[in-house]
Amino acid sequence: MLYPELNPPFRILLGPGPSMVHPRVLRVMTTPLVGHLDPAFLQIMSEVQVLLREVFRTTNRLTLPISGTGSAGMEAALANFIEPGDSVLICVNGYFGERMCDMAARLDAEVHRLERPWGEVFTPEEIDAALHKHPAKLVALVHAETSTGALQPMEGIADVVHRHGALLLVDCVTSLGGVPVYVDNWGIDIAYSGTQKALSAPPGLAPMTISPRAEEVLKQRKTKVPSWYLDLTLVQKYWGTERTYHHTAPITMIYALREALRVVLNEGLERRWRRHRRNAELLWQSLEELGLELVVPEEYRLPTLTTVRVPEGFNEAFLRRRLLEDYNIEIAGGLGAFKGKVWRIGLMGFSSQRSYVLLLLAALEDILREMRVLPMRANGNGEEEEPVEK
Amino acid sequence: MLYPELNPPFRILLGPGPSMVHPRVLRVMTTPLVGHLDPAFLQIMSEVQVLLREVFRTTNRLTLPISGTGSAGMEAALANFIEPGDSVLICVNGYFGERMCDMAARLDAEVHRLERPWGEVFTPEEIDAALHKHPAKLVALVHAETSTGALQPMEGIADVVHRHGALLLVDCVTSLGGVPVYVDNWGIDIAYSGTQKALSAPPGLAPMTISPRAEEVLKQRKTKVPSWYLDLTLVQKYWGTERTYHHTAPITMIYALREALRVVLNEGLERRWRRHRRNAELLWQSLEELGLELVVPEEYRLPTLTTVRVPEGFNEAFLRRRLLEDYNIEIAGGLGAFKGKVWRIGLMGFSSQRSYVLLLLAALEDILREMRVLPMRANGNGEEEEPVEK
Repeated sequence: MLYPELNPPFRILLGPGPSMVHPRVLRVMTTPLVGHLDPAFLQIMSEVQVLLREVFRTTNRLTLPISGTGSAGMEAALANFIEPGDSVLICVNGYFGERMCDMAARLDAEVHRLERPWGEVFTPEEIDAALHKHPAKLVALVHAETSTGALQPMEGIADVVHRHGALLLVDCVTSLGGVPVYVDNWGIDIAYSGTQKALSAPPGLAPMTISPRAEEVLKQRKTKVPSWYLDLTLVQKYWGTERTYHHTAPITMIYALREALRVVLNEGLERRWRRHRRNAELLWQSLEELGLELVVPEEYRLPTLTTVRVPEGFNEAFLRRRLLEDYNIEIAGGLGAFKGKVWRIGLMGFSSQRSYVLLLLAALEDILREMRVLPMRANGNGEEEEPVEK
Repeated sequence: MLYPELNPPFRILLGPGPSMVHPRVLRVMTTPLVGHLDPAFLQIMSEVQVLLREVFRTTNRLTLPISGTGSAGMEAALANFIEPGDSVLICVNGYFGERMCDMAARLDAEVHRLERPWGEVFTPEEIDAALHKHPAKLVALVHAETSTGALQPMEGIADVVHRHGALLLVDCVTSLGGVPVYVDNWGIDIAYSGTQKALSAPPGLAPMTISPRAEEVLKQRKTKVPSWYLDLTLVQKYWGTERTYHHTAPITMIYALREALRVVLNEGLERRWRRHRRNAELLWQSLEELGLELVVPEEYRLPTLTTVRVPEGFNEAFLRRRLLEDYNIEIAGGLGAFKGKVWRIGLMGFSSQRSYVLLLLAALEDILREMRVLPMRANGNGEEEEPVEK
C-alpha cells in the first residue's frame, strides 16, 4: 500500500503546543545533512549552546538540547539527579507536576508531594514548611503549567530550596522564549524546555541547562544513571570538548533549533516577552467580554497558555471540532482534573500574533452565536438560522 | 551574539550514518505542522504504521517509531522487556552489543555475555549452548553491526531462542531498508532501527516492532517500565486506538519518516536490497584492487557498511581528513576495539549510488598516490610532486 503525497490541512495552532513553526525554521529543515562528527556540525552544536545560554539567561557550561521531546527533558532532569532512595519534593498543581511524580517514583525516589489545587501556585513559605517536614535532595516545580495556565512566581523559591541544601529543578517547557525565564538570577539548578512551544521549532528536542552545583551532584553519583540514552555524564562528552560519540544527534532538529534561537534573539527576549503578554491580554479581555470565565486569576495567569472555563452544560468538544473543521483553528480541551471543564488556548512563539487572536475571537463569536450562547445575527433574508447541536 | 544563517558544507555522506537524506524527504520537512492530536495527524500516524509494517515485513500490531534516535530504540527495546533481576543473554561481537550490555546492566538485569571476536558472527548452536548454561528471558543480538560490518545470519536463531522460552531482540539499525529483514519469518520478537541509515531520513526516530508474544510479556510485567518516556504500555495508547496523549510526537520527523517509507516502498524492498548489494560489491572489488583489505569475510559482509583494514603504519585520520576537506566525502574511523584500525564506509539508502562509489574510489586513489601508497601519476611537466605527510 502506497499513500499519496503528504498533504495535511493548514492549521492555525492555538493549542498547548506544538505552536506554529516559524517559516525561517521550516526552511532550514531542507538543509542537507552533515555527519554528527563533522567539524562543521561540531561548530553548529557550539553555536546552539551559546544561543541556548542566552535564551535561558545563564552562564551554565552544561547547556544543551536533549534528543527527545519536552518529556524526555523532564525525564533527563529527574533521572540524572535522583538515585534510588533519594528524597524529592515535587510541587503538584497540575498535570505535569503529576507526571514528575510518576517519573520520580519509577526512579525509586522517595517522593513527597506538595499539593495545591489545579490553577493555583506555591509560596516559598509552603515549600520551606514542606522541606522542614521532609528534607529532600531535590525540589521540582513547574514554572508554566500547560495543563492549568498558571505561572509560578519564582521570587524567593531558590533561597528556600538552597537553604535546605536541595537542588531546584524547574520545568520551563511552556515558558522559555515566551515569558521571562532567568535561570541564573532565579537560582535554578536544573531547567528544561521543549522546542515546540514559545521557541516555535518542531517538537523533538528538549533544551536543558544544569548549574555548576547540580553538575557537582551529578559527578558525585554512586550509581549509574538508569537511562543510558539520557545519561548526561555521557551526553556531555559529546557536547563538551571531548566530542566523544554517544548517540547520533538529530541533526535536522539541531538545525531547526539553531534557526529558532536566532529568530528569538533577533526579535530580542524582552520584546518577545512583551509581545506574548500584549497578545494574551487582548485575548483575556476579549474572552471576558464574550462572557467567558478565565480559570487563573490575572496575577498568576500565563501569557503563553490561557485556560477558559467551559460554561455549565456546554459540549466543549463540539466547539473545538467546529473551530478545527470550519476555521482550521486548533485549541485544546482540558487534561486530567480539567478534562471537559476547560479549553486551553495557546499563544506561543509564531502563534502569538494579534491577527490570530482576532481571528480566533471572530470564529468563537460565530460559533457561540450559532449555538445561541450569544444572540443571533440576522441572516440575509431577515430570518434566523436554525440552531445547531449544542 | 547572533550567528550568520545556517550554511554547512555539502557533504557526500559515506560513513556509518547519517546517510544522505533523500531530497523528497527534505522537501516534506517544510510542511507546516498540525497538532499531535489533530485527526489529520492521527491518520498520518496510522499510515506510518502500515508502511513500517511493510518495511519490517511484519503484521505486528505494535509497530511504531520511538521518539528518539536508534539508541533510544535500543533502550526502549530493553527497558520494556527487562525487569530487575531478569536474566538476559547478549551476543557481543562489536560496539553495539557492548552498548546493549551497558543498558541492560543499568536496568538491573543479570547480564550474560556470549562473545565472538569483532567482525565475526554467531551460530544457533552457540546460542543454544549459552542458553543451556544460563537460561534467559531475552536474547539480544545485532543484525548488522555498524562497528564491524558483519551481518548476522538469522536462520535458525529464533528456533533456538524460542525453544528456551526466551524472546528474541534484534538490532536492525543498519539493516532495515538496505538488506533483507523479515521480522515475522525470522521469528523476531522485538526489533528496532533508526531513520538515518538505509531509510535515508534524518536521525531522530527509532522504528520499532513488537511481536504478540513480546506484547504478552510486556502486559505481564510486575514492575513499571523504569523510563516513563519510553514506556510502551503508555506510548501504545497514543499510537493505538485510544489516542491518549502521552508526549508530543516529533511531528516533522514523522512527516519525514512517512515520506522516506514511501520512497523505500516505491523503489520496492527487493530492488532496494539488490541495489545496496550491487553497489557494495563494486566497492569491495575496487577496494581490493587498490590493495586494501576488507575486515569481514564476504560470507558475512554487510552491504550497508564496509570495514577496511588500515595498512600498517598508516595515519588513518589523515586520509579521512583529506577526503572530507578536499573532496567533501565523509567516511568514518573505527570505534572501540577497531579504533585506529579500520575505516568504515557506509552505502546506505540515498548514499548507495554507483556514482558515489566511483567518486570515493577516485578520491581514494588520488590520496593514496599522493601518499605514495600507490605509484605516483606523472604531473604536467613530467616531474613527481612532493609527497605529503603520511
